Amino acid sequence: MTHRFIDDEWKIIEEGFAPEESRFTESIFTLGNEHMGLRGFFEERYTGDSLPGIYLAGVYYPDKTKVGWWKNGYPEYFAKVINSTNWIGIDIEINGIPLDLATSKFRDFRRELDMKNGRLTRSFVWTGPRGEEIVFTFTRFLSMTRKNIACLAVEVNSLNFNGVITLLPYLDGDVTNEDANYGEKFWTKINQELTAETALLTMETKKTGFRVATAMATALHNRHPETPLPAKKELCSAEELVGYRYSVPVTAGARFTLHKLVAVCTSRDFAKADLETTSRAKLAKALADGYDLLYEEHRAKLHAMWEEYDVVITGDIRAQQGIRYCIFQLLSTYAGSDPRLNIGPKGFSGEKYGGVVYWDTEAFCFPFYLYTNAEIAKNLLFFRYRQLDKAKENAAKLGLKGALYPMVTIDGTECHNEWEITFEEIHRNGAIAYAIHNYTRYTGDQSYLLDYGLEILVEISRFWADRVTYHPRKDCYMILGVTGPNEYENNVNNNWYTNLMAAWTLTYTIDSLNLLQTENQAKYAAFIDKTGLTAEELNQWRTITEKMYYPYVEELGIFEQNDLYMDKELQVVADLPPSELPLNKHWSWDRILRSCFIKQADVVQGLYFFPEKFDRETVRRNFDFYEPRTVHESSLSPSVHSIVASRIGYKDKAYALYLRTARLDLDNYNADTDDGIHLTSMAGSWTAIVEGFAGLAVRNDRLTLAPYLPGPWTSYSFKITFRGRKLRITVDREQVSVQLLAGAPLTIVVYDDEVALAPDFCRTLKTR
Amino acid sequence: MTHRFIDDEWKIIEEGFAPEESRFTESIFTLGNEHMGLRGFFEERYTGDSLPGIYLAGVYYPDKTKVGWWKNGYPEYFAKVINSTNWIGIDIEINGIPLDLATSKFRDFRRELDMKNGRLTRSFVWTGPRGEEIVFTFTRFLSMTRKNIACLAVEVNSLNFNGVITLLPYLDGDVTNEDANYGEKFWTKINQELTAETALLTMETKKTGFRVATAMATALHNRHPETPLPAKKELCSAEELVGYRYSVPVTAGARFTLHKLVAVCTSRDFAKADLETTSRAKLAKALADGYDLLYEEHRAKLHAMWEEYDVVITGDIRAQQGIRYCIFQLLSTYAGSDPRLNIGPKGFSGEKYGGVVYWDTEAFCFPFYLYTNAEIAKNLLFFRYRQLDKAKENAAKLGLKGALYPMVTIDGTECHNEWEITFEEIHRNGAIAYAIHNYTRYTGDQSYLLDYGLEILVEISRFWADRVTYHPRKDCYMILGVTGPNEYENNVNNNWYTNLMAAWTLTYTIDSLNLLQTENQAKYAAFIDKTGLTAEELNQWRTITEKMYYPYVEELGIFEQNDLYMDKELQVVADLPPSELPLNKHWSWDRILRSCFIKQADVVQGLYFFPEKFDRETVRRNFDFYEPRTVHESSLSPSVHSIVASRIGYKDKAYALYLRTARLDLDNYNADTDDGIHLTSMAGSWTAIVEGFAGLAVRNDRLTLAPYLPGPWTSYSFKITFRGRKLRITVDREQVSVQLLAGAPLTIVVYDDEVALAPDFCRTLKTR
Repeated sequence: MTHRFIDDEWKIIEEGFAPEESRFTESIFTLGNEHMGLRGFFEERYTGDSLPGIYLAGVYYPDKTKVGWWKNGYPEYFAKVINSTNWIGIDIEINGIPLDLATSKFRDFRRELDMKNGRLTRSFVWTGPRGEEIVFTFTRFLSMTRKNIACLAVEVNSLNFNGVITLLPYLDGDVTNEDANYGEKFWTKINQELTAETALLTMETKKTGFRVATAMATALHNRHPETPLPAKKELCSAEELVGYRYSVPVTAGARFTLHKLVAVCTSRDFAKADLETTSRAKLAKALADGYDLLYEEHRAKLHAMWEEYDVVITGDIRAQQGIRYCIFQLLSTYAGSDPRLNIGPKGFSGEKYGGVVYWDTEAFCFPFYLYTNAEIAKNLLFFRYRQLDKAKENAAKLGLKGALYPMVTIDGTECHNEWEITFEEIHRNGAIAYAIHNYTRYTGDQSYLLDYGLEILVEISRFWADRVTYHPRKDCYMILGVTGPNEYENNVNNNWYTNLMAAWTLTYTIDSLNLLQTENQAKYAAFIDKTGLTAEELNQWRTITEKMYYPYVEELGIFEQNDLYMDKELQVVADLPPSELPLNKHWSWDRILRSCFIKQADVVQGLYFFPEKFDRETVRRNFDFYEPRTVHESSLSPSVHSIVASRIGYKDKAYALYLRTARLDLDNYNADTDDGIHLTSMAGSWTAIVEGFAGLAVRNDRLTLAPYLPGPWTSYSFKITFRGRKLRITVDREQVSVQLLAGAPLTIVVYDDEVALAPDFCRTLKTR
Repeated sequence: MTHRFIDDEWKIIEEGFAPEESRFTESIFTLGNEHMGLRGFFEERYTGDSLPGIYLAGVYYPDKTKVGWWKNGYPEYFAKVINSTNWIGIDIEINGIPLDLATSKFRDFRRELDMKNGRLTRSFVWTGPRGEEIVFTFTRFLSMTRKNIACLAVEVNSLNFNGVITLLPYLDGDVTNEDANYGEKFWTKINQELTAETALLTMETKKTGFRVATAMATALHNRHPETPLPAKKELCSAEELVGYRYSVPVTAGARFTLHKLVAVCTSRDFAKADLETTSRAKLAKALADGYDLLYEEHRAKLHAMWEEYDVVITGDIRAQQGIRYCIFQLLSTYAGSDPRLNIGPKGFSGEKYGGVVYWDTEAFCFPFYLYTNAEIAKNLLFFRYRQLDKAKENAAKLGLKGALYPMVTIDGTECHNEWEITFEEIHRNGAIAYAIHNYTRYTGDQSYLLDYGLEILVEISRFWADRVTYHPRKDCYMILGVTGPNEYENNVNNNWYTNLMAAWTLTYTIDSLNLLQTENQAKYAAFIDKTGLTAEELNQWRTITEKMYYPYVEELGIFEQNDLYMDKELQVVADLPPSELPLNKHWSWDRILRSCFIKQADVVQGLYFFPEKFDRETVRRNFDFYEPRTVHESSLSPSVHSIVASRIGYKDKAYALYLRTARLDLDNYNADTDDGIHLTSMAGSWTAIVEGFAGLAVRNDRLTLAPYLPGPWTSYSFKITFRGRKLRITVDREQVSVQLLAGAPLTIVVYDDEVALAPDFCRTLKTR
C-alpha cells in the first residue's frame, strides 16, 4: 500500500517523480472519453520504464493464443484491445539535447488530474548544467463532447535559459503491444500525408481490418507577444511517422505554448472511404473553434455528468477522493454512448485482460449503471443478446446444448485458454441471467425480458440442463468439474454458488415463460415455435430445480463451498504470516488449491445476489465462516463482502472492506496497478455505498433504503434514477433525506417505514 | 489402425510410398545406436511433408517455456533433445533437375528395415519424361560398435538413362526444431572446413554450450569398372553447410555407389579443444577400415545382442515382428552404455516430449532392463540418485520438505508446465522409490539400496510426510489436490494409487532403515547423521502409514480411484459410439474430466505393482470395474492391464490388450506415431510377455514362473538373467522348458512346483 497522492476532494496530485513507480502512476493518470483513452505516459521521449498505451474502444486484434499444452476446445485467438497510433508524442530538445526525465535534471515535478474538469496537467522545471531553468507544463484532455478529438498543450517558460528549444509533435504508427504473444505487430500502414497545416496517418489492423485515420494540427502561441519568437517549423516524416519540428530560439523570460489538436476516426464509426476526410473535417472544425472553446465545452459536459453521478462524502477527504476517482474512471470508460461496447476490466489503462469483457460486467459493474441510468444497463444487456449465437456455438464446442457465454470476449468468441477457467468457470452464465432479472426487477420494465432476455434465458437453461449429472444412487442432480468464483479451487464438484445460479436460472426462465404466456399468448406461441421448446424440457428443468444438490455442512449450519471443501486444513487468513500474502505471489499453485483460502466471494457472492432467499442468521453464519478464510486477492471480492457485512449489521467490517476497494488503485493496495486500474472494483465501491451503507434494494416491487453512516464519515449523498424518477439520498448523523428531484410521486420504504415522496420535496427520517 | 508393412519375422518392409503418411513411416524407420539417432527421412531433398530429425543423446537445449497463463512455480525452461546437424543429406539432380519424391515420377518404392542387421534400405526407380529409368538404392546404418560413426550409401543404376547425374552429399548445420516455442534457432556455428578429402562442421548449442563436430568423407565407386565413369568432384559450401558435388555423366547400364561416412563427436564425450581432431581421427579410421568392414562388425554386434534379447514367437508372424521391433528400438535408444543417459519416451524418433525423462522409465521401462541386464537397471537408478539435490530444490519450490522428482527432466530440473501435472502428478515419486525396491528384490543386491537408494527414499518420504493433510474430524491422513496416473481426472483428493504409493514408500523406507541398522550399525549412525533424520520424523511416518485414508466403495468391494469418483455418471467404454474415440481427439477437456473414463491404469497400476498385497478376488473385482471404463489413451496402459489380466486368468483379455501394445506403432494404433514411436509401450510389451504370459515374478526371494500360451501362439521363448544366472524360458502347447544357460544351480518355482535347475540342463514341465 502506498500514499503517493495528496489528499484532495477533486484532484489526484502527485508531487515529485518516482521513476520506479512510473507504470503505477501512468495507470492512475489514465484519461478516456469512451471512444479512446490513454495511460498517463509522457508526451516527450522517456527512456525509463514505461508502458505506453493509447487504446481505441472496440478496435481489437485476435492475437495468436499462447499455450504450453493444448487442450481440445481451446480458442485459437485472444482478442485484445491494442495499443494504437501514438498521437500524444511531442519530443523536446534543448540546445539539441533530448529532454528525457530518465536522464535530464529537473525539479518540482508535479502531475495533477483534475477530475472535475477532466484534464491532466504535468509540470516540472528543467535545470541545465549551468543553472539554466525552463518550466514545462503539459496539459491534455480528451473531449467529452467531441469523442474523436484530443487536445494537448505544452507551455514552455524559459526562466533564464537562452538557446534553442525544439519541439517535435508527431503521430507514430509504429507501436506494439507489450503482451503480444509472439512479438507480432498488429498494424499495417495505409497512408501517411504531411502538409504545412495537417499531418495524417492512417493505419489498419491486420486480420480484423479496423482502419484508423489520425489527423493532427499544431500551432505555436507566443505568450509574450511583445517579444518576437522567431520559431521555425519544418515537416518531419519517417516510415509510419509524420510530424513537425519547431525550432524556437528563446531568451530568458520567453514563454510560449504549443497546441496539438488530434482527430481520431475509426472504421467502426465511418466508412473506410470517408475516414481520412472525416478526420480532417473534424480536425478543421476543432481548429476553427480553438483550444479554449474545446476545453470549455468539455468542462461543461463533465460538470453536467458530475451533477448526475457525484457521490459527496464529508468527514473523510480520502474517501471522497477515492469514490470520485472511481466514478471518473467508470464514466471515462463506458457511459453508454456506444451500445456495441462493453467494459473491459482495465478500461483504457493497460493491456492486461486484453480490454475485453468478463462476467465482471454483469456481476459487478451492472448495478452502478442500472441505478444511475437504466438505458446504459439495457445497452449492456443487448451486448450479450447480440452475442447469443456465438454463445450457442461455444456450448456446442464443449459438446453441450444451449448457450455458454465466453469467459472472455470482445465479439462473442471465447478468448480464454485455461481449461479450469474456460471450460469450467461456467457460473458466468448465471451472472448474465441474473443481470436480466436485476434490470427487470429494478426498472419494472419487462419488455427486454420478454422480447429478448427470455431467449438468452432459455438457451442458458438448456446449457445447465445438459451440464448437470443425475446421480441415481442419491437421486439428485450434481454439477461436476467446475470452478466457482473462487478461482483458488479448480475442477471441483458441486460448487454451491454454481449450483444455486443454475437452479435459479431454470426457475427464473420457467417463471418468465409463464409471464409471457400470461401477458401475450400469441407471442408465447411464437416464442415456443422459434426456440423449439418442449414440455419435456420444461419438465426436466423443473425436476432439476427440485432435485439440485447443494453441499451443506450440518454441524456448522453453513453451505459447503463445494464438495470436499471441509476436508481441507481449516485455517483462517489471520493465521498466515503477512510475508506470505498475497498468496498468489508467494505460494505455488497446488498449495493454494489445496488450502482452504478463498480468492474472492463465492458462497458470499450467492448470499449477496439473493438476500431474500436466506435469513439473516444463515447469512451471518456463512459470512463468519468464509470471510475469515478469504484473502480477497481479486479486486471483486471486498465490495461484495462489504455489502453483505452491511446487511448483517457488521458495520466496522463493512467499512474496513470498503476501504480495500474504494482506494484500491490510488493506494495501489494489491501492488498491481502498474498493469492498469481495476474498473470492476470501482463499480463495486459505488455499489458498496449504495447497496451497502445506504441499503438500497428493491423489495416487493418497492425501492427500499436502510442507510447508516460508516466509519468517520459525517455525511454522504448520491443520486439515483428509479422508474422515471430522479432521487437524491443524503445521509448524515441525524437524518436520512430523500428528495424526489424529478418524476412522479413515489412511495418507497426507508428502514421499515413507507415514505411517500412528492416532487421537489425532501423527506427526512432519523438515521438508525 | 493401419496394416502398412509386410509381415516378416525380421524385417519391416514398406512397398509403395504414401506421402500422406510420411511422418508416420519416418518414425517407424528410425535408427539409433544409443549415441545418436535419426528419423527415417530421406537423404535427398524432399519438399513434401516431413519431420526431419537427427538427435544426439544428451545434447539438449532449454527452450523457453510457452504458457498462456503463468502459475507460481512453473519452470522457465523446457529441456529438449534437439534436431542437430543434418549429416544424411545427399541431394540428387538428374540432368540438373532435382530428384524429389514429392515432384519426381518414380515406381517400385520400397523401404526395408532389417532389424537383424540393423540397416535401413530404400530403393525406387526414377522414371524420366522419355521413359528413362534409374534405380536408386539408399542404405544407412549407425554403427553399434563405433558409436560416433554413421555410414550411408547410395547406389545408382542407370537402366537406360544417358545424361548427367549429380550427387551432393553435405553436412548442414542450419536446422531447427519444429516445436521450438518461439521459432528460436538453438545452434551457432563454431567452425566449418572443407578440403578435397574431408568436410567438417562444428556447431554449438546456445546456453547449454554442447559442441558437436561432424566430419564427413565421401567416395564414389564404379560398380562396372570396365566402363570408365568420368565423375567430377567439386567442393561446395555455404553458411553452415559443407559438401561435395559429384557430377557423373552416365550411359545406360552405368552403376556406381556413393559412400558417405560420417563421424559425430560431442563435447559430452570429448574435450572441446580435441573435438575436431577426434572427429577427423575417427573418420580416418573408419575410412581406412572401409564400409564393408564397418558393416560386418556392426552386424556381428547386433547378432550378439539378439542372442541375448530376442523373443522368439511361433504361430503368429505379426506378433514376432512386433516384439522384435520393440526390442530393436529399445536397444537402439538405450542399452546402458552411457549411464548419464536415460530413456526419452520417443527415443530418437521425434521431438515430442522433448526426448526427456518421465516416470515411464521407472514404472514401465525398468523391468525390461532389470530382467535382462541388471547393470543397466542400476545405471537407471543412479541417474536419479545424481539428481537428488535438484529434486530437493524442486520440492522446496513448492514449499515442501524432502524431494519431489520432476515430471519431465533431462538434468534434474523440472521442465513441465501444466499445474495439474507439474505440481500435482506427484505419484511419480512413488515409481522412483518402487524401482529401488524392484531392483533390490530381483537382484538380491542390497548395496544400491543401502549405499544410495536409502537417501532417495528418506527424502521422498519427507516429501510425502509434508504433503499429506491430517483430517482431525476423521482422524486420518489425506493427500489433497493430486493427479493420479489417470490424467483424465485432475486435481482430485485421495487418489488411491497415490496414497498407496506414499504409504508404501514410508513403510519401505522405515524397513530399509531397519535393515541398514541391522547390517551395519556404524553406517546407520553415519546415515542418520548425514540426513538429520529424527525419531520424531520416523514416528510421524509410522503414524501416517497407519492412518492413511484409502477411498473404498463398500457396496462394490472396490477401491475408489479417488474421492467422488463414484459421483460420476458410470458408463463403460462399450457404451460410447466408436466415432467419439479416442476421447482426447473428440471431447473437450472438461467433458473428459467429468466423465468416468480413465486414460490409463490407475487403481490397476497399484494392483500391478503389489500383487502380494491383494488377493485374486480383490484384483478381479477392481479389474472388472475399472478396465471397462479405461480408454487406454496412454500407450502405457494396455501392457499393465494385460499383465494383471494374465494374473487373474483373463487370458483372452490379456492377449487382446497385448495386441494393442505390441504393434502400437507398426499399426499406428493410436494414430499418433507421426510424432514418434512409443518406447515405453515397447518395454511394456516385452514385460507383458514375461510378467504376463510367462508369469515371471520374485516371490519369497524365489524366481517364479506361471506361463501360458496366449492367443494363436504355438510357442514363445526368451532369455533373462537372474542373480548371476542366464536362463532361457521356452513355452509351447505341451511344455514349459527352463534352461540354465550360465551360472550356478538355482531352484525356481514354476506354477506351484519347485524346480531345481542345473547348468546346461533343460527342465520341462507340462504347460497349464
